[in-house]
Amino acid sequence: MRPSNRRPDQLRPITLTRGYTRHAEGSVLAQFGDTRVLCTASVEERVPPWLRGTGSGWITAEYGMLPRSTGERMAREAARGKQGGRTLEIQRLIGRSLRAAADLHALGERTITLDCDVLQADGGTRTAAITGAWVALCDAVGRLQRDGRLADSPIRHQIAAVSVGVFESTPVLDLDYAEDSAAETDMNVVMNGAGGLIEVQGTAERLAFTRHELNALLDLAEAGIEQLLVIQRETLAD
Amino acid sequence: MRPSNRRPDQLRPITLTRGYTRHAEGSVLAQFGDTRVLCTASVEERVPPWLRGTGSGWITAEYGMLPRSTGERMAREAARGKQGGRTLEIQRLIGRSLRAAADLHALGERTITLDCDVLQADGGTRTAAITGAWVALCDAVGRLQRDGRLADSPIRHQIAAVSVGVFESTPVLDLDYAEDSAAETDMNVVMNGAGGLIEVQGTAERLAFTRHELNALLDLAEAGIEQLLVIQRETLAD
Amino acid sequence: MRPSNRRPDQLRPITLTRGYTRHAEGSVLAQFGDTRVLCTASVEERVPPWLRGTGSGWITAEYGMLPRSTGERMAREAARGKQGGRTLEIQRLIGRSLRAAADLHALGERTITLDCDVLQADGGTRTAAITGAWVALCDAVGRLQRDGRLADSPIRHQIAAVSVGVFESTPVLDLDYAEDSAAETDMNVVMNGAGGLIEVQGTAERLAFTRHELNALLDLAEAGIEQLLVIQRETLAD
Amino acid sequence: MRPSNRRPDQLRPITLTRGYTRHAEGSVLAQFGDTRVLCTASVEERVPPWLRGTGSGWITAEYGMLPRSTGERMAREAARGKQGGRTLEIQRLIGRSLRAAADLHALGERTITLDCDVLQADGGTRTAAITGAWVALCDAVGRLQRDGRLADSPIRHQIAAVSVGVFESTPVLDLDYAEDSAAETDMNVVMNGAGGLIEVQGTAERLAFTRHELNALLDLAEAGIEQLLVIQRETLAD
Amino acid sequence: MRPSNRRPDQLRPITLTRGYTRHAEGSVLAQFGDTRVLCTASVEERVPPWLRGTGSGWITAEYGMLPRSTGERMAREAARGKQGGRTLEIQRLIGRSLRAAADLHALGERTITLDCDVLQADGGTRTAAITGAWVALCDAVGRLQRDGRLADSPIRHQIAAVSVGVFESTPVLDLDYAEDSAAETDMNVVMNGAGGLIEVQGTAERLAFTRHELNALLDLAEAGIEQLLVIQRETLAD
Amino acid sequence: MRPSNRRPDQLRPITLTRGYTRHAEGSVLAQFGDTRVLCTASVEERVPPWLRGTGSGWITAEYGMLPRSTGERMAREAARGKQGGRTLEIQRLIGRSLRAAADLHALGERTITLDCDVLQADGGTRTAAITGAWVALCDAVGRLQRDGRLADSPIRHQIAAVSVGVFESTPVLDLDYAEDSAAETDMNVVMNGAGGLIEVQGTAERLAFTRHELNALLDLAEAGIEQLLVIQRETLAD
Repeated sequence: MRPSNRRPDQLRPITLTRGYTRHAEGSVLAQFGDTRVLCTASVEERVPPWLRGTGSGWITAEYGMLPRSTGERMAREAARGKQGGRTLEIQRLIGRSLRAAADLHALGERTITLDCDVLQADGGTRTAAITGAWVALCDAVGRLQRDGRLADSPIRHQIAAVSVGVFESTPVLDLDYAEDSAAETDMNVVMNGAGGLIEVQGTAERLAFTRHELNALLDLAEAGIEQLLVIQRETLAD
Repeated sequence: MRPSNRRPDQLRPITLTRGYTRHAEGSVLAQFGDTRVLCTASVEERVPPWLRGTGSGWITAEYGMLPRSTGERMAREAARGKQGGRTLEIQRLIGRSLRAAADLHALGERTITLDCDVLQADGGTRTAAITGAWVALCDAVGRLQRDGRLADSPIRHQIAAVSVGVFESTPVLDLDYAEDSAAETDMNVVMNGAGGLIEVQGTAERLAFTRHELNALLDLAEAGIEQLLVIQRETLAD
Repeated sequence: MRPSNRRPDQLRPITLTRGYTRHAEGSVLAQFGDTRVLCTASVEERVPPWLRGTGSGWITAEYGMLPRSTGERMAREAARGKQGGRTLEIQRLIGRSLRAAADLHALGERTITLDCDVLQADGGTRTAAITGAWVALCDAVGRLQRDGRLADSPIRHQIAAVSVGVFESTPVLDLDYAEDSAAETDMNVVMNGAGGLIEVQGTAERLAFTRHELNALLDLAEAGIEQLLVIQRETLAD
Repeated sequence: MRPSNRRPDQLRPITLTRGYTRHAEGSVLAQFGDTRVLCTASVEERVPPWLRGTGSGWITAEYGMLPRSTGERMAREAARGKQGGRTLEIQRLIGRSLRAAADLHALGERTITLDCDVLQADGGTRTAAITGAWVALCDAVGRLQRDGRLADSPIRHQIAAVSVGVFESTPVLDLDYAEDSAAETDMNVVMNGAGGLIEVQGTAERLAFTRHELNALLDLAEAGIEQLLVIQRETLAD
Repeated sequence: MRPSNRRPDQLRPITLTRGYTRHAEGSVLAQFGDTRVLCTASVEERVPPWLRGTGSGWITAEYGMLPRSTGERMAREAARGKQGGRTLEIQRLIGRSLRAAADLHALGERTITLDCDVLQADGGTRTAAITGAWVALCDAVGRLQRDGRLADSPIRHQIAAVSVGVFESTPVLDLDYAEDSAAETDMNVVMNGAGGLIEVQGTAERLAFTRHELNALLDLAEAGIEQLLVIQRETLAD
Repeated sequence: MRPSNRRPDQLRPITLTRGYTRHAEGSVLAQFGDTRVLCTASVEERVPPWLRGTGSGWITAEYGMLPRSTGERMAREAARGKQGGRTLEIQRLIGRSLRAAADLHALGERTITLDCDVLQADGGTRTAAITGAWVALCDAVGRLQRDGRLADSPIRHQIAAVSVGVFESTPVLDLDYAEDSAAETDMNVVMNGAGGLIEVQGTAERLAFTRHELNALLDLAEAGIEQLLVIQRETLAD
């Protein structure tokens, strides 16, 4: 029995709210149960130095948690003077995942930055961030098209992500914090709309896992991501 | 004529939403028109080194803006490795203002940290932060009382704040960004529930101001803060 | 009775010594009683990136305290690896105040940096810094004119500053450290030579203050600044 | 055909040299072809604050690359003032992997730090680091036992790691830099001596990958790690 | 001919002004011609962690240059966020030199920090700092004795320093900036009152130097330091 | 009797191994007994900003110690976020010494960076670094010549360095850690192939030293450096 009474293969209630804030070219609040991540996409008409003159654009991400998004207050990274290893690891994952969505040359020499800020954390913030950021990216590209700055969309793939894990010996989908903090194995899976794998990051937290468990987790993730892809498309259709 | 069509002495629509996030002892979304600041109050059972053993508690504040809370994306302070001067100046103001609300000895040797994070900026973020943080502080104290950790409330004064300024030669209340960026004079006023002044920070942005203008601005601020005090009390009464 | 036996409206002995050091285009030691601040003005023939090509110059300030300018040794900010919030707040105030002295376009695309370093602190360092920096700024502009780099002076206003506060229930002018550390209210006032207000920063340290007290403090400040303006002009006339 | 002429399932020549430096309790040079990583294990009789008094020890890792371990000189992280995201990500992976080797309570309240410094890089530095660090950890534990500081070894599992990837549409084992920089998919796999999975980190570099490819890569990794486990045991038996 | 018309073996006018600032236990302005360094000695009743409980005290130094102590404005180290290599090298030299003056056990478990801040630079700031800091150290020890905190002085040696160098093929004493920036060889020498060498730091700036030149420079330094030792004693006798 | 049973004027076994790593234009492992420093020379076709357009090249150095190169593990400087004073002092010394080897204009507008990383420390790391770096510099220049990027070598002088010191009242050559940590005086000497002095840095660690001792130490250094110069030439001749 899961703490939330969900079935092993059941997602939490998912909501992706577009236009959550006003200034960004794309702004999506991604809610996976009590996890709430604000994903904004910002367009800037410049690229990092190593891409200047190449005709290629860039997609990158930054991740942060509000100090009291968590049960215990965390020190503010801006005040400590650096981003922690977990933060950097997550924002690198988000950036790589979203770059897999687009043809960077078709974007042209501009940068889209996906800021994923956790307002409230209850497990699965990085996968909620990726799922929401893809919608924000679409909205930013739509804005570029409406503004006449881009004729065709550079987006080639739909991207969504979910966490899976082994909790009390059972593979479960979309772990909340109560499950995540007690899980034996924890895995984040990013896939595209064609069913291709983009990232698989599995970690044995307490016990090693088997190929059999890995496959069961991937099955769960695949089914979960399929539902998320539908929600993303419905959100964009509104 | 103000860009927002408000009268010179008219506040923007104000909403203070309690319990906006789940983990913090106090969590208030302060909305002043399009300005939205999430104010959380976190209780920790320890004090800074210089207060250990004195019997006194501490109230402090931290302020941040999400990178895309503004029209142009701002660099993330955590990534740049330090908080800017404006950020430090604002969080010092918020901290001082909220310490004026309470008897720190009556709080006991614990710290309440007020995190004020701007989700969306449209002028007046620091005064919205102070006004919201006072409600979050009350909620955190209420939680301490309900948990039996504190018998009597250490809160002695109600605290609210508003910005005023001279815009196109006219003193106006509660400036939004369009006004703020063009104002000749800009002033932030913090007052308590008894009508006492806590902070007055006036700056000539383009032209020096006169004692007469200063008084007109303080009159506007006083009237505005009176309304904010009512809204705070109504919010807490819900 | 003030600790220094001064009348409530009495300044400390004020001395502004020009040419205190040799290298800077302007170099003034500002002494307000035992407070001694070395104010240097340095001219550089470049502007910050955001002003390049605009024809506008820039005036900025940096503030520091020598580690043993105070009663207890303070940690050296260079060794701690960052400037504290108080330092940044003060140097922002000095910079804004001095920019109010000049027409930045008339300065041309160059930067004047006012370094205000406290050799000995006894209260009122930021207002002494502003008062001395204005004289250093004039000397630097004079040098530019003598060198033929500038035909007409871009200085439009005389700028001086003083602190006032409520000490043992009495409004007093130009607080020394003994008064400042015990004051109920503390206010820094910056004015120009025409009697216009540039900055008013009042803080209730122990008790809220009234509009009546605010006015009494501003009256004191106005009278004190008038004397400082005379001293500045006499210093420049030497 | 692989650039190195190896078969798809062929490891590079592997050497683990114990006692490579003199001071550390364990010191192993791990060579995977031209990749050379110096792995030292240092014992300190203290634990991080959050473990004090719990009876539990700690195993952690730090990773670095010498500036000219690579084809182009990289900026020295100590001089830049921070460790990059890739560095932090890798050292977190090494630390987690090695903690999976031991019973931290059986270690007692002491810390073993595994410093993995890349002297020469040619792909697969993180997996070489993990494979070498496990041997260094064993040597450090052996030293503790010989010194009478520890009766029984806290090591419960053998740990080794290898990289696999899809290069020119073919799954291959133990990629060198020429392959790694052109790979379509890149995966790092950490396993224990019982065949359990500890970490699986797969990334689509150019193209999404399929479950089929994932399984082919895991098969290769499993076979490669089996060989590495033998080499580790032989190295320790010397 | 030296730019200053001095003889090769002639010091600049030297003044050591005690009690230059009010708060520090020792405060000396050291002037070597146009070089002016404020040296303060601060006593703190604690020692660094590695000396706690050993009965030994500590003497250390910090060095800084005001941004416009030099011909061109230097960036403020506090603003840049770190002390440069030259600063650290100099403050390590000053600290070592002054520790050679005292018996740290006789000082007891307290720290004396020598802050050497350059108000105006014209060559030889580090040697002026050492020479002035020794007098400030004596004054701080005198204060401890007068306050009854210390019965006997822990000072065992008089310490002074001077720069020498080869300028236009001639060995000269106490180089000013014009000489220093053109010198072929530059050497700083620290000696004690008994004629013992404490530090010799010679650098070939343009040409290698010979043993013969080294000896000529040391002869000059010895004679110069003898004069400085007299000036120090006369200063303390006032 | 020296702890190593060496005669006072005896060097430790010295080995300079060229081509120790593969990527760098020059790569030398310098071994002085148990001290092992990896010295790489990296060529970059750019110069620091202040040399652009001057036709002059640049030679610079960076120094680091692996955390467990020492008896006790040292904190990793990259993790602490800054290089310590000792590190900066040493890398400045190495850089200055190697610049004395070459005509920077003859190098052309390119930079050679000498990274000296201590794999194992047993005293004398900075002098081993200089001695090894000179050979690495030669190899890098040789590579530039073979690649046709440079017609004539810009190297004008051979450079080598050794430490000397007074240990148990006896001047000794090439101190190991056991001697270094107990020495009364410690001196580092850098000379060129023509017998000219480049750097002399002598420090009284416990007792002041005399001119007589200084001369005895320089005699020892001279004789030691002569042997090192031979070893360098033999190494290059291989």
